[in-house]
Amino acid sequence: MSLNFDQLRTSINTYINGSIPREPRSLYDPVRAVLESGGKRARPILTAYCADPANVDESVWLPPAAAVELLHTFTLVHDDIMDNAATRRGRPTIHVAFGLNTAILAGDTIVALALESLSKSDSPQIAEMTAEFGLAFRGVCEGQALDKDFENRDEVSLEEYLEMIELKTSRIFELAAVLGALAGGAINLENYRLFARHIGLAFQLQDDLLDLTGGPEFGKTIGGDILEGKRSVLFVLAMESYGETVGKDRAMLDRLRERRANAEDIPPIRSLFARIGVLEKAASMAKDCTDRAMEHLLQIDNAESRENLIAFSQLLLGRAT
Amino acid sequence: MSLNFDQLRTSINTYINGSIPREPRSLYDPVRAVLESGGKRARPILTAYCADPANVDESVWLPPAAAVELLHTFTLVHDDIMDNAATRRGRPTIHVAFGLNTAILAGDTIVALALESLSKSDSPQIAEMTAEFGLAFRGVCEGQALDKDFENRDEVSLEEYLEMIELKTSRIFELAAVLGALAGGAINLENYRLFARHIGLAFQLQDDLLDLTGGPEFGKTIGGDILEGKRSVLFVLAMESYGETVGKDRAMLDRLRERRANAEDIPPIRSLFARIGVLEKAASMAKDCTDRAMEHLLQIDNAESRENLIAFSQLLLGRAT
Repeated sequence: MSLNFDQLRTSINTYINGSIPREPRSLYDPVRAVLESGGKRARPILTAYCADPANVDESVWLPPAAAVELLHTFTLVHDDIMDNAATRRGRPTIHVAFGLNTAILAGDTIVALALESLSKSDSPQIAEMTAEFGLAFRGVCEGQALDKDFENRDEVSLEEYLEMIELKTSRIFELAAVLGALAGGAINLENYRLFARHIGLAFQLQDDLLDLTGGPEFGKTIGGDILEGKRSVLFVLAMESYGETVGKDRAMLDRLRERRANAEDIPPIRSLFARIGVLEKAASMAKDCTDRAMEHLLQIDNAESRENLIAFSQLLLGRAT
Repeated sequence: MSLNFDQLRTSINTYINGSIPREPRSLYDPVRAVLESGGKRARPILTAYCADPANVDESVWLPPAAAVELLHTFTLVHDDIMDNAATRRGRPTIHVAFGLNTAILAGDTIVALALESLSKSDSPQIAEMTAEFGLAFRGVCEGQALDKDFENRDEVSLEEYLEMIELKTSRIFELAAVLGALAGGAINLENYRLFARHIGLAFQLQDDLLDLTGGPEFGKTIGGDILEGKRSVLFVLAMESYGETVGKDRAMLDRLRERRANAEDIPPIRSLFARIGVLEKAASMAKDCTDRAMEHLLQIDNAESRENLIAFSQLLLGRAT
């Protein structure tokens, strides 16, 4: 009998909240604010499920699980600065609420807390975990660098886009899975890693798609990526069809490319993307990645892990809570 | 026969430069720029000397030594943003040369490189090293938070000031020493740590003092701390004498406290500080810390380490290169 999502979330949140010091308050109040602002805790749940929490002690898998969530939270704080984002999860972002300097320092401190947490695991594999953590951390920074670079470019190939999301999004999922697998004894490690990589890609592709097909129930402002000039998969796929467009369609793609699209352009862009097959293709790419993830999942030699990870996939892709 | 400063610097610089990837250039060009901009490499030299490099393989002590220098460099990049600093070591700071977003991300990436480096040590003590690294990293963030808090306060006690510099400055020296001692077999660990803490305090006190007694040969703009409203030891000691001042002297201290002092005020502030014993007292505090460091050094049970660390102290406190 394995732990369910709510039980895991309670363990993770209790552990993280208990690891935040009180003083100086100028530093830890914002750290606490961002860590208490919610989130599904999908990544540490992945760590738990890859560690097989029914058979591995909490003192082994919980510290690295918390470390992964902390690393993810750090990226939100610093990315929100770089993206000039005013709100996250319905609240003001840290740099808006507490100022730029505090947001930089709070993000840095959250990474330090992640490392401290990681080092507290009772696993004998801390050296390997530290190496994986450092590599994933740097990969996420590279992904963010590419994402920001792409915003200033008029053309981004599908290959470049996929490299970027593999770094920016999948690396933390991979880290979550690998730390869990290491905590659980490092059996089937590469299958856990590749499951996580592909489910992470599917998650990001779906997230890009939800920019036009989602809505407030997904915590999304429709067309937010377009207004921010993000080079999402929808943009990349639309540009692949650029040569076949004429008239108003081409003018609309030019507005997109030159970052001139405004709120009024969102409905016609959505219609255009539906008409030229962009939405369908993005959905199909997400499905292909999910299928690849499932292929690796089936190689995992533990029936309970497989079941847990299928439930996790549904959580991540929005069909469970 | 031990390695001298130049030999150690060459090893450290070669190792660090070899660990920086090329792509994406938008990220690694600024990372490379800040890491190649010089510096005495005092902290990794401390790691080396605490590891006893004549008897411990480079593959054990060099990766953690590089990790310490990388952590230190990260603090320079992010602190320069928070301090609005335009130049460092005679060159434009990273946020001035490459923009705010790149500077935030370059700093983050340098921490990731530090962790990767740490994890590559052949030491069996990586778990302990990771724990020490996380703790020091967080301590440095707390020290920076206090330093920025103090700039907005009119009163800072000597005790508060000493807590701040112990976190902001000494923690990285402690980390350097402890990682070295761990690499060398963890004998005399606490003496290495306490030597480093006190030599770090002496270094910071002397650095504060050089704001008024140094000059261009120390890479200092005379009175820079005063113009920036820093709550240095000189400010803290001067405010302890506030009640005994009258007339022009008190008016000058009020200007200091209210961050209204300008370039013309620097010479009279220097005279005032000399007259009321502030400069002498700061120098005496630095000497006391150096003496405490030497007491711990004498407890270290290795004659070559003791000699090396005396040479290191002279390097750090500016009487050697």
